Amino acid sequence: MNRQQLIELIRRKKSFLCVGLDSDINKIPRHLLSEPDPVFAFNKAIIDATIHLAVAYKPNLAFYESRGVKGLQSLEQTMQYLNRFSDQVFTIADAKRGDIGNTSEQYARSVFCPKESGFEFDAITVAPYMGEDSVKPFLGFDDKWVVLLALTSNKGAFDFQIIENKATGLRLFEEVLTRSKNWGTPENMMYVVGATKAEMLADIRRIVPNNFLLVPGVGAQGGSLAEVVRYGMTPECGLLVNASRSILFASTGTDFAEKARQEAQSMQQEMAAWL
Amino acid sequence: MNRQQLIELIRRKKSFLCVGLDSDINKIPRHLLSEPDPVFAFNKAIIDATIHLAVAYKPNLAFYESRGVKGLQSLEQTMQYLNRFSDQVFTIADAKRGDIGNTSEQYARSVFCPKESGFEFDAITVAPYMGEDSVKPFLGFDDKWVVLLALTSNKGAFDFQIIENKATGLRLFEEVLTRSKNWGTPENMMYVVGATKAEMLADIRRIVPNNFLLVPGVGAQGGSLAEVVRYGMTPECGLLVNASRSILFASTGTDFAEKARQEAQSMQQEMAAWL
Repeated sequence: MNRQQLIELIRRKKSFLCVGLDSDINKIPRHLLSEPDPVFAFNKAIIDATIHLAVAYKPNLAFYESRGVKGLQSLEQTMQYLNRFSDQVFTIADAKRGDIGNTSEQYARSVFCPKESGFEFDAITVAPYMGEDSVKPFLGFDDKWVVLLALTSNKGAFDFQIIENKATGLRLFEEVLTRSKNWGTPENMMYVVGATKAEMLADIRRIVPNNFLLVPGVGAQGGSLAEVVRYGMTPECGLLVNASRSILFASTGTDFAEKARQEAQSMQQEMAAWL
Repeated sequence: MNRQQLIELIRRKKSFLCVGLDSDINKIPRHLLSEPDPVFAFNKAIIDATIHLAVAYKPNLAFYESRGVKGLQSLEQTMQYLNRFSDQVFTIADAKRGDIGNTSEQYARSVFCPKESGFEFDAITVAPYMGEDSVKPFLGFDDKWVVLLALTSNKGAFDFQIIENKATGLRLFEEVLTRSKNWGTPENMMYVVGATKAEMLADIRRIVPNNFLLVPGVGAQGGSLAEVVRYGMTPECGLLVNASRSILFASTGTDFAEKARQEAQSMQQEMAAWL
C-alpha cells in the first residue's frame, strides 16, 4: 500500500487506529482452545469485529515465534486472512529486525516476498543500532515500508535513546531521525514514537514533519491520545496509533470480540473527532 | 551450557571457532536440492564435517525466516540435530531481537523454552537500542545467555555506535557495555564486537575484562584473527570467533563439506596456536 492509499483509507474510515495482534495463547479466551488453530480463530474474530474501525493491523511476531512452527502457521493463516482485505488495511510486521546488509535482505524477504516466505506485509519495524546498511535492504521493495525505531514507549528508552551527541547536540533518537530520513522518503519510512513521550513529538516533528509515525503506548502503557494528536498530527494525519492489549483482552469471555469492537469503536470515535 | 563448561570445551577442542549457519538456499550446492529438506541436509553435512573443530554454531535466523514455515522447519531439524551434541557445542540464535519487556519475554521463550517453541539454544543475540527492560527478560533462564550488540562489523556501525555522549565522554558502544554489564554477569552476558574494528577491542576490554565476546567479521568481511586475539583474548580465552560464508561456501560442488572442514581446520589450527 502506498502513502496516498493509506491517507485515503484514514479519511474513509475516519480512523488512524492500528490494532496490535499480540495474541498470547495464554491470554486468549479459554473456549477457543478447542479450535484447530486457537490463535488464528482469535485473530479472525478480532479482525472481523474491528476491520471497519481500524486502518492497520500489527502482528507482534514474538507472540507467534514463541510457539515455534505452530505459531508461524497461526501467523500465516492470519496474514492470508488479512490479505483478503489488502485494500482496506495496512499491515505491519512488528519484528524490530536489523542486521548486516545480506542478513537484513533476508529479513526483508521474510515479510515482503510471499512467493518465498508465504508472508506479505506492507511494513516492518526495524531497529536502527546497526546503521544505514542494516536498514537500506528493507527499502528496496515497491510500496513497502520501514517503520524505524526512534523513541520507544518503554522505560529503557531513557537508557540510550536520549544520550546527547557531543558533536551535534542532538539526542540519539534525533540523530536516528536526522540521518535516516535521507535513507528513505516519507513514501517508505515511518518512525516508532511512544505515546508515553508525547511531549517529545514536537521535537520529532521539527525533524520529520511529513513522515507517518507509528505510536504505541496508548492504552495499557498509559499514553494519552489527545497529547499524541496535539504534538504529532499533520494535515494528512501522519499518525497510526496502536492499541494491543486494551482491545484484544477487553474481555476474556465469550464476548471478547464484541468487547474488542466496543473498545476499538471508542478509540475510533475519538480519532474521528480529531480528524 | 554454563561458562565453565564453555571454557572447558574451548580447551578440549583447542578452538574458539563458531560456525555461522547462514544457510542460504540459493547458495547451497545444487545437488542437495533433491533432498527432502535441502537446507537441513546442508547444515547436517557442515556440522558433521566441522563438529570436532568448532565449539559453537550460530544459525542466522534471517536465512530460515525468509523461507517462512518451511524455513523454520529446516531450523527445527538443524537444532534437533545439534542438540544431540549439547555437551559438545554451544548454540547461538543469531536473531538481533529486542522489544518492550512482555515482548522480549516471548522472544526469549522462542529460543529457550523447547516445550513451547520446539527450539533450544544456549544463547541469543540481542539489540540494545530499547534499553534495560528490553534485555532483562532474556537473562532469566538458567545457563542461557544474551549476546548483546556492542560494536558491529558493518559499515553502518559508524552511524550511531561511535556517537560520543556529551555527559560522559563515552561512545555509544561504550555506554552499552558500561550500563549493560550490570544487567547480567560474565556468566550470562556476551557482547558482539566486529573483527573489522579489532583495534577498539582494547577499549572494550577495559570495560568488560571478563565477558566473552562473539566476534564476527573474520573471513568474508575482512577482519584479522591475529588482531582479534591480540586485543581481545583473556586468560580464559574470552572469545568466540565466527566464520560463516568462508566455511559454508568454501566450495559449491559435491566436495563442499570436505572444503568446509579444511577451512574450519585452518582456522582451528591458528586458534590452537594462540591458546
